[in-house]
Amino acid sequence: MASDIIIRPLRAEDHEEWSRLWTAYLAFYETELPAEVYQTAFSRLLSGEAGEFQGLIAEIDGQPVGLTHYLFHRMLWSIEDTCYLLDLYTDPSARGRGAGRALIEAVHSAAKEAGIPDIYWQTQEFNYKGRMLYDQLATRTPFIIYEKHG
Amino acid sequence: MASDIIIRPLRAEDHEEWSRLWTAYLAFYETELPAEVYQTAFSRLLSGEAGEFQGLIAEIDGQPVGLTHYLFHRMLWSIEDTCYLLDLYTDPSARGRGAGRALIEAVHSAAKEAGIPDIYWQTQEFNYKGRMLYDQLATRTPFIIYEKHG
Amino acid sequence: MASDIIIRPLRAEDHEEWSRLWTAYLAFYETELPAEVYQTAFSRLLSGEAGEFQGLIAEIDGQPVGLTHYLFHRMLWSIEDTCYLLDLYTDPSARGRGAGRALIEAVHSAAKEAGIPDIYWQTQEFNYKGRMLYDQLATRTPFIIYEKHG
Amino acid sequence: MASDIIIRPLRAEDHEEWSRLWTAYLAFYETELPAEVYQTAFSRLLSGEAGEFQGLIAEIDGQPVGLTHYLFHRMLWSIEDTCYLLDLYTDPSARGRGAGRALIEAVHSAAKEAGIPDIYWQTQEFNYKGRMLYDQLATRTPFIIYEKHG
Repeated sequence: MASDIIIRPLRAEDHEEWSRLWTAYLAFYETELPAEVYQTAFSRLLSGEAGEFQGLIAEIDGQPVGLTHYLFHRMLWSIEDTCYLLDLYTDPSARGRGAGRALIEAVHSAAKEAGIPDIYWQTQEFNYKGRMLYDQLATRTPFIIYEKHG
Repeated sequence: MASDIIIRPLRAEDHEEWSRLWTAYLAFYETELPAEVYQTAFSRLLSGEAGEFQGLIAEIDGQPVGLTHYLFHRMLWSIEDTCYLLDLYTDPSARGRGAGRALIEAVHSAAKEAGIPDIYWQTQEFNYKGRMLYDQLATRTPFIIYEKHG
Repeated sequence: MASDIIIRPLRAEDHEEWSRLWTAYLAFYETELPAEVYQTAFSRLLSGEAGEFQGLIAEIDGQPVGLTHYLFHRMLWSIEDTCYLLDLYTDPSARGRGAGRALIEAVHSAAKEAGIPDIYWQTQEFNYKGRMLYDQLATRTPFIIYEKHG
Repeated sequence: MASDIIIRPLRAEDHEEWSRLWTAYLAFYETELPAEVYQTAFSRLLSGEAGEFQGLIAEIDGQPVGLTHYLFHRMLWSIEDTCYLLDLYTDPSARGRGAGRALIEAVHSAAKEAGIPDIYWQTQEFNYKGRMLYDQLATRTPFIIYEKHG
């Protein structure tokens, strides 16, 4: 079913397609970010350094159709780090082919290879389409999020 | 009101009181952790290194009555990092005197000093007493959390 | 779009199709009811008496494909009664053609004709497909439901 | 603990105290109702007729300190009716003495005497104080409420 989807690390030559996909993703959250944030994010994603987000691309027929960004970070309740999956996106035209699921599972595999057992992500309560997938793959916790702004 | 509460960084000599407070906090989440996790957590909290959680203690009359643990970590949607407030606890006997509020505000100040505008935390939907405070200080987002375990 | 859908009152000759549709609906809630409840419900739905639920059928090409059950009942906060929409179902094979929306709007019209301005219904938080429709037609309130059993 | 609380049916001579209590309750929901609604509601509550809400008063030392309004209405999923507890209020000065709990339990008893096994009520997700009580007495269902206005 998902056999024609390839998940691979983000690469420098993905810059244009990555920008397109991330912009489409951010638009879902009614968010626009300045060019400086794109530049900084892309450079951090490629840095390979500890404490930086990493990126994966979903490809169908050699064409990027989805992305995810995730961060390994400390967790005090365990010796192991945890993994925060921040962004997840698939082109509308490529949906229903398993790219979202494959991206989440690839993050999970990358975490496990790094000795990290759990991944987590936030989603809006009313992200019904996303949650149809997440309910199959993961567990909804009873946690909600509070934010305090500058 | 909160005038007799002092918030200060966690110190090596707090080990015993810190263990007591963290154990009481974890009990609220019906969680017990092995000694190794306590040792590792305490040593990381005191390390002062980037990528590690930091700790604050709330003191009344020279006696530790509360704690919080927080982590600065990357955020892709901004140049600035963000701040994840993980643990927050006040002794039942010291409640109602503003220690919880003072701890959150001290994390917020520490974040701002580090150039980080926002802090966020998770709480259980049914943590009514906590939410009475959080609703005064912060904004509930529409986000929920999914987890995928090893 | 919904031009081929007819919404009409439940009739005695619908008994078999009504049973089929209600059973399918109840199965969604993992509920099975004894024959006695079917008999009593059907007879009450057709009674035309005050204080009883009423039923509507959605028909496509003369074939029942959906149903709804609703009750007018007192409300203390207004002179007017209110309207509780209890059950709503469309055959999977007929979905996407507007039957669910037409059923809700027909209940709303029936209520308005009876001098009742508002209708309300419950749905499970995780009824994502239903909520995609409800969010277009109605407002989610901040209310949740508690139940105390015998 | 609740030994000094008496729960009894609403009576005609309660009009003034009932108005005071209901006004205070409605103020919690930032609601003001015209005199006509008060008149109609009170007269319906005392009517003793089927299809009307009924009222109970909580008394301490002969003084009304709380009220509840409830309605028996049809339910299609059972032969028995169900019971909708609409309003529940205790004077702030009388809180902590068990009046809210006693009122809910009295509605439950009245329902059982009428052959009705279950009672239910709505509450706002963020009614933390109410929910501390409800979580002890009842079960939170996964249901949320949608409303469609005139």
